[in-house]
Amino acid sequence: MTKHSELKNGQSSLFEKARGGDRRALARLISYLENDRPETEDLIRALASDYQEVKVIGITGPPGVGKSTLVDGILRELAGRGKKTAVLCVDPSSPFHHGALLGDRLRMNSWHNHPDIFVRSMATRGVPGGLSPKIIEITNLVAACGFDFILIETVGVGQIEIDIFQLADLTVVVLAPESGDEIQAMKSGLMEIADIFVVNKADRPGADQFVKNLSDIPGPGPALTTRATRVIKTVATKKEGIDLLVETLLGALLRPELAERKSQQLADKAFFLIQQNRMRNIDKKELLENIKSKIAQGQFNLYQFVLSYGS
Amino acid sequence: MTKHSELKNGQSSLFEKARGGDRRALARLISYLENDRPETEDLIRALASDYQEVKVIGITGPPGVGKSTLVDGILRELAGRGKKTAVLCVDPSSPFHHGALLGDRLRMNSWHNHPDIFVRSMATRGVPGGLSPKIIEITNLVAACGFDFILIETVGVGQIEIDIFQLADLTVVVLAPESGDEIQAMKSGLMEIADIFVVNKADRPGADQFVKNLSDIPGPGPALTTRATRVIKTVATKKEGIDLLVETLLGALLRPELAERKSQQLADKAFFLIQQNRMRNIDKKELLENIKSKIAQGQFNLYQFVLSYGS
Repeated sequence: MTKHSELKNGQSSLFEKARGGDRRALARLISYLENDRPETEDLIRALASDYQEVKVIGITGPPGVGKSTLVDGILRELAGRGKKTAVLCVDPSSPFHHGALLGDRLRMNSWHNHPDIFVRSMATRGVPGGLSPKIIEITNLVAACGFDFILIETVGVGQIEIDIFQLADLTVVVLAPESGDEIQAMKSGLMEIADIFVVNKADRPGADQFVKNLSDIPGPGPALTTRATRVIKTVATKKEGIDLLVETLLGALLRPELAERKSQQLADKAFFLIQQNRMRNIDKKELLENIKSKIAQGQFNLYQFVLSYGS
Repeated sequence: MTKHSELKNGQSSLFEKARGGDRRALARLISYLENDRPETEDLIRALASDYQEVKVIGITGPPGVGKSTLVDGILRELAGRGKKTAVLCVDPSSPFHHGALLGDRLRMNSWHNHPDIFVRSMATRGVPGGLSPKIIEITNLVAACGFDFILIETVGVGQIEIDIFQLADLTVVVLAPESGDEIQAMKSGLMEIADIFVVNKADRPGADQFVKNLSDIPGPGPALTTRATRVIKTVATKKEGIDLLVETLLGALLRPELAERKSQQLADKAFFLIQQNRMRNIDKKELLENIKSKIAQGQFNLYQFVLSYGS
């Protein structure tokens, strides 16, 4: 038996284990995808024969607004309703993420053995807040393992090819009534992508004015909430407002208006995946080194270089 | 003679005319590229055998700060120094652009017969401020026609695959000391990409404080100016400050620190062009329609769909 087919077999049994509820197997397969091991092509073929749609909710906002405590509350609420939920955390400042303080890591571990909850922090590949290039495959892997919802927690709009608003059925932007927060959100392009705003720490002064300001900002459309639930006040540390938020999310996910956006998102995903397939053999670092050495030899010609890669 | 080879011959003689200084021929070839006519593959092959590097300066900033008057001043200054300069204008609000007011169009026409100046407005393909997907080929076409500099005027960072800071050797961000202008620049991500800030309308109140604020913002690196010329005050309507600006630009373009950035940009360009070649036969609209009809038939499977496109 060759090494390759051993890995193949090892992997397909990992996939079966993960589908059977083995969280360590799931975590390992996610690492395989993140590290883009060549064997994951087999996993992707397995996903193709077990393809499932899943509801993805993006939770994004500047650091320090209390996203993780909010996500914690949403998890608790959904678990209480018998829903299976996975969290993919791309926020390097989040306690769900690697390298967090000990106390926070313990809190995250409180979900460790819950049968309906899976929490996983994600590598960001050097782009702060950037999603893994394999995030599409990862969400579909999680979906194949029987989860009802995936929450993706990020610090904002990344700079790689696919962004949270292309990936999520709904995008929740979390802010807190603090000076500079609105500017920060504007700066990072968060205002435009919010289906729902959450004003967390809403027991602080200035919260009502802040909610009022946000209510006037147009959403990306179509409108998925009533005017009253476009901006939701929460105090995540006291579990206030979480039930209304979850109620609103579940309602919005059922809206027929989402279908049009969903097809567009699937087309974007398909385009991205086809492109990734076709560019698989091109390593950006190698490209750069190649170009540098040609420049050093005084031989660089952009078009001859491009044509040499074929089409 | 087939229709195809007629076009081919027609085109190669257009290219020769354009290289010989015929501006109408150059303008027509740019339109060919913009409209992605299949025959332009021959033009691209011609560019491959006549590849020239050119200095590209990005001039960007929110509408209303006086970018066009500034570009006008830079053109005059460079022409006075015997430099050949082309302007590609991607700013729909600019008088250099189509659809401008009559008076402005006349002013633009004042350059019409100047032997060392070429001004061309560019289609934005529905993305405000977005660069044409053919902008790389267009700059190289202009370079092959013997220009020393290309100024690209945009309203900001676009949302397509290649951005002004990937394309330009230097990026100049133009602002005016007016309320809301800083916010606007932040919102559109302009602050991060400025090698040089220009504060135009610097005879207005608040200009000095504004210059001071901008001086503290870190550039994208490496530093290409002295601290004194990182922010330059101009009053474009009175031709004030333009000489210092042009002096600074010419100095910055000679900095050896630019070489590292340049190789990275060439690698980005090469990657983009290879990708474009390989995705040539995929039409995003068709992809969407295809997906919609599969969804309607209840048959959609993302991975099977992607695999059917081959790699």
